[in-house]
Amino acid sequence: MEKCTVIFKPSNKSISVTKGTNLLEAARKAGVFIDAPCGGKGRCGKCRVKIISGDYKEEITSLLTSEDRQKGIRLACLTFVEGDMIVEVEESKQVQNILVEGIKPGDEKNERVLKASKLLEEEGIKKECGVFNIDIELPEPSIDDNVADFERLKRELKVKYNIENFFCSLNVLKNMPKILRENNFKVRATFLKGKNGCELIRIKARNKETSTYGICVDIGTTTVAVNLIDLESNKIIAAASSGNLQMQYGGDVISRIIYASTEGGLEKIKSAVVDGTINRLIDELVKKANIEKQDIIISTFAGNTTMTHLFLGVEPAYIRVEPYIPAFRECPELKAKDIGIDINPEAKVIVIPNVASYVGGDIVSGVLATGIWKEEKNVLFMDLGTNGEIVFGNKDLMLTCACSAGPAFEGGEISCGMRAMPGAIDEISIDRKTLEPKIRVIGNVKPKGICGSGLIDLLAEMFLSGIINSKGEISKELESDRIRFDEDLYVMEYVVVWGKETADGRDITINEIDISNFLKAKGAVYSGSNVLLKSVGFSMDDVDKVIIAGGIGQNLHIENAIMIGLLPDIDRSKFSYIGNSSLLGAYLCLLYEQARDKVKEIADAMTYVELSVYPSYMDEFISACFLPHTDMNLFPSVMSLLNQK
Amino acid sequence: MEKCTVIFKPSNKSISVTKGTNLLEAARKAGVFIDAPCGGKGRCGKCRVKIISGDYKEEITSLLTSEDRQKGIRLACLTFVEGDMIVEVEESKQVQNILVEGIKPGDEKNERVLKASKLLEEEGIKKECGVFNIDIELPEPSIDDNVADFERLKRELKVKYNIENFFCSLNVLKNMPKILRENNFKVRATFLKGKNGCELIRIKARNKETSTYGICVDIGTTTVAVNLIDLESNKIIAAASSGNLQMQYGGDVISRIIYASTEGGLEKIKSAVVDGTINRLIDELVKKANIEKQDIIISTFAGNTTMTHLFLGVEPAYIRVEPYIPAFRECPELKAKDIGIDINPEAKVIVIPNVASYVGGDIVSGVLATGIWKEEKNVLFMDLGTNGEIVFGNKDLMLTCACSAGPAFEGGEISCGMRAMPGAIDEISIDRKTLEPKIRVIGNVKPKGICGSGLIDLLAEMFLSGIINSKGEISKELESDRIRFDEDLYVMEYVVVWGKETADGRDITINEIDISNFLKAKGAVYSGSNVLLKSVGFSMDDVDKVIIAGGIGQNLHIENAIMIGLLPDIDRSKFSYIGNSSLLGAYLCLLYEQARDKVKEIADAMTYVELSVYPSYMDEFISACFLPHTDMNLFPSVMSLLNQK
Repeated sequence: MEKCTVIFKPSNKSISVTKGTNLLEAARKAGVFIDAPCGGKGRCGKCRVKIISGDYKEEITSLLTSEDRQKGIRLACLTFVEGDMIVEVEESKQVQNILVEGIKPGDEKNERVLKASKLLEEEGIKKECGVFNIDIELPEPSIDDNVADFERLKRELKVKYNIENFFCSLNVLKNMPKILRENNFKVRATFLKGKNGCELIRIKARNKETSTYGICVDIGTTTVAVNLIDLESNKIIAAASSGNLQMQYGGDVISRIIYASTEGGLEKIKSAVVDGTINRLIDELVKKANIEKQDIIISTFAGNTTMTHLFLGVEPAYIRVEPYIPAFRECPELKAKDIGIDINPEAKVIVIPNVASYVGGDIVSGVLATGIWKEEKNVLFMDLGTNGEIVFGNKDLMLTCACSAGPAFEGGEISCGMRAMPGAIDEISIDRKTLEPKIRVIGNVKPKGICGSGLIDLLAEMFLSGIINSKGEISKELESDRIRFDEDLYVMEYVVVWGKETADGRDITINEIDISNFLKAKGAVYSGSNVLLKSVGFSMDDVDKVIIAGGIGQNLHIENAIMIGLLPDIDRSKFSYIGNSSLLGAYLCLLYEQARDKVKEIADAMTYVELSVYPSYMDEFISACFLPHTDMNLFPSVMSLLNQK
Repeated sequence: MEKCTVIFKPSNKSISVTKGTNLLEAARKAGVFIDAPCGGKGRCGKCRVKIISGDYKEEITSLLTSEDRQKGIRLACLTFVEGDMIVEVEESKQVQNILVEGIKPGDEKNERVLKASKLLEEEGIKKECGVFNIDIELPEPSIDDNVADFERLKRELKVKYNIENFFCSLNVLKNMPKILRENNFKVRATFLKGKNGCELIRIKARNKETSTYGICVDIGTTTVAVNLIDLESNKIIAAASSGNLQMQYGGDVISRIIYASTEGGLEKIKSAVVDGTINRLIDELVKKANIEKQDIIISTFAGNTTMTHLFLGVEPAYIRVEPYIPAFRECPELKAKDIGIDINPEAKVIVIPNVASYVGGDIVSGVLATGIWKEEKNVLFMDLGTNGEIVFGNKDLMLTCACSAGPAFEGGEISCGMRAMPGAIDEISIDRKTLEPKIRVIGNVKPKGICGSGLIDLLAEMFLSGIINSKGEISKELESDRIRFDEDLYVMEYVVVWGKETADGRDITINEIDISNFLKAKGAVYSGSNVLLKSVGFSMDDVDKVIIAGGIGQNLHIENAIMIGLLPDIDRSKFSYIGNSSLLGAYLCLLYEQARDKVKEIADAMTYVELSVYPSYMDEFISACFLPHTDMNLFPSVMSLLNQK
């Protein structure tokens, strides 16, 4: 079969592929991971690349304009290699360059982190991660005292420290003779406490700086964030994040489960997150902190149910089909080597337990961090990331559900959507008269797209300006060159930024399909929350606190989120934002050994409500897809604002 | 660099190597494993190959005759590839084709095996290997009972069988969803009992023939033997053995430890026994028995201290240097995946503990099988394999030592020596007048060499015939064309079989160097035993039983072994032969869970005597290198026989 070489700019990565190979697949093979939320099905239009030279075939798509085509822009998933090619991929399109807000070095003194830690300490939970070190000196062997190295160590540990019956891994044993002799039999032995006694996890020179480290990881569907923590000083010493490389197989959990069911798919998609994402981030962390991977001896992982299944390589197929059964809620205690995490192979791996197929360890982790489990008052906890998960309750009762919100809050399924990163418009206001927008862009760069908080602002402002009605339809009556008809898609659109001011020279627009997608997402979240409350006879008025977490970002304007009917119209002082609560909970489980039991208790205590079988859910959902809602009594302050107009 | 292709006959395996590559190394790379007891140093002359065609360079050696050279015979280790070559390797020279006597299918009813089992059962130890099966039916999941698969299984096991808090490996969890559904939630769960609770090791259809299996393995320096046992019927269902592929790196433990210290050497030599030998034998076993490897869930391994270190990939360097310290005596409990044994990755691996650097788990295993640990009487246990290890004692005291006997009892370091396999002369008598020998050959084939029992016969008969004196010197006075002078080696030799009657057409001879080597081996064993006894104030007269084990074979003539001074001159009824006691002990540890504790107790109870530091040892050794001994009072029956002459 004929071979062609494809070179990807600007990285200059190249690959030799068989003629006819799909360009997105060629990029994957070359290690250039292009974000493809729809999984390469030609639906989302996100995998835009620029063909510099070379022969190719392509499938026709309405997702590219004739201007795009003139510039050489193509969708990688619809392009097939026919000869040697040179292709340019915008850095920000590459999955591995996606950044996410997480916990940074020094954040152990951050208010959110301190508050979450305090919640545990108030319950008598001590900041003890279960690691202890023993500095020991063994008598050197002789013909008269010719006991083996391992038995010598055991003898001295028993006599001098009363430590008996510990486990020792083969890896530690393998190098014990050399390490003992290189250090004249004076070593530091590091033990890890466990359910069934201690484990000797490392012996090392004791004169060196031999600290021990842990990592906590948030495995998001879209992004993965990792923190490196010094287990002796309890300091966060490095942080790293990137897109989840699984995105090349689809943007949402369903398309990934489907991919996992293909031949070899489960192994590939597991490897994409373990080797391609987490291990790469670990490389970055140990370089930043200048430490050895072998010294990372505990790791905690929080992710949704599908993510934890794929992370472990466990069959996820039945998550997707009724009655929606995951393989496990709580996974057995594992070691890094069981999964292939590139730290000390014997390192403890703690995976935060799941609740059900669509409420996972990320939410349990969030519940730990928010303290709902010990709260007297009624808390509504909303994690608005790639999907949307809701928890309602207090120390006596916790209900939870998953809304099918999709990735809209992170800019997914929205033509101009993007994540909150440099180039994203995160704040928008529209002049009521001129209909001209005023925008704020993250970073000192030209705008590239609009992130979740920007989209919320945009919809609220378009609504208040009369550009859209309560159904999300764009007015054909208003006089503005920003409002126009898209001949290709046959829908109305509004131009947020003209092409001359944008990073890629294309107009940043929002059209009625985008608006409809966003309304479905916000409708799913609101109606989900409402049904959850109703299922136990409560209403939004009974909510004492609303805690918002997830990728929607810190710049969320509560007022606008209420205006569009995403958040309930209640006292604004009840709202707070906790950021990446999944990572925060994983951080707590790393540093507080007892927190690992606490998350199990939390997962056990949470009752999952399957919205799809709840009788009134569909009606609730449809009502919530309007701006702000069909029942305006639920949004009194919005009603009064509209009446003022 | 120029490449040359070498083809090895008769297997037709070929390899491309750089010009100048050593031919033994080329054979290793091609997967043709030639026995090289000296490790390729040109000393032993065993790696003879026949060059069919091609260019090569060679180093000069006195180990080949001019006749050999004319026939194209060369030593692989002294030959260097200079062009494309075709080389013939005799099948029996290939390590993997070496066979060993072990335990065969059906041997569970063999007297030796029954006797060893009875020794345990008399102490109340039950034939329980620690495996149990639960046939369980789970209620199928529904929206109302949407508990995860693993939690569903746990719930039912708790409710119906009161089984709680078991471990479950990731491997079992990974496929649990599919296995449950393929079997309509009716499955057989197999558990393995352990120190810290049970482990769920397998779930499988319960309607199939789903037995569980174990393997017991004797890792000898020279040979490896494996038995496959059905853990439900307790029957031995298959057996396999071969040479230890580590032999390509040297015949004795010292040369292997040296090889392990070279760059990458430890990994290679570990792989030679694990992948190259044991996993290949497992392949053979599962094919013979037609079972799945996944169903092998327990494995036991007995080997000497160096073998257990190399098997596990543990640094062996300090075994070799004073004060001779192994890395471990008792290794931690391991799983097959930790080592790379190709059975169920979660299968339990039990390695019989060592006593000291030169008395290993093979001897502890032998002590278990012989019952010395519960014996009232004084037992002398001699394992005469590649080295020679001795145990003396009873239930109150057990002493042990290692003799530096080398591989002479298995035919090593003897020019005409070979292992007890087809073609080996295992019995010899010499006519006192004609000095013509009468031989017996194993198998219906022409003789190739002489094995241990044959060498003992030969030396005794040569001594009684007056061909050799008590120093092992061959008489120059006797009239026989079988007695001649070897011009190359400048020593006398005796022709046992003329070339016209042998397999390869070469005379089978024994020379004074061979005799001297064999006398040193037998001297080491006798003096070792004697010093061991003396160290606690005993003499050979205090020995009530002598149990002989190891590769020396069943055909050992006790009378001749006493004649040459290998065995003590005591009542012949005290002697018995137990065969491969290392494998027998491993077999017991597989089937009797409590035997695994017993071997630990035995290893703890054994006192190691380091002969090299024992004051009178060197004198004892020198005296024992004579035929039968310088102190004829120790051999009264030999004295009286010689006096009769």
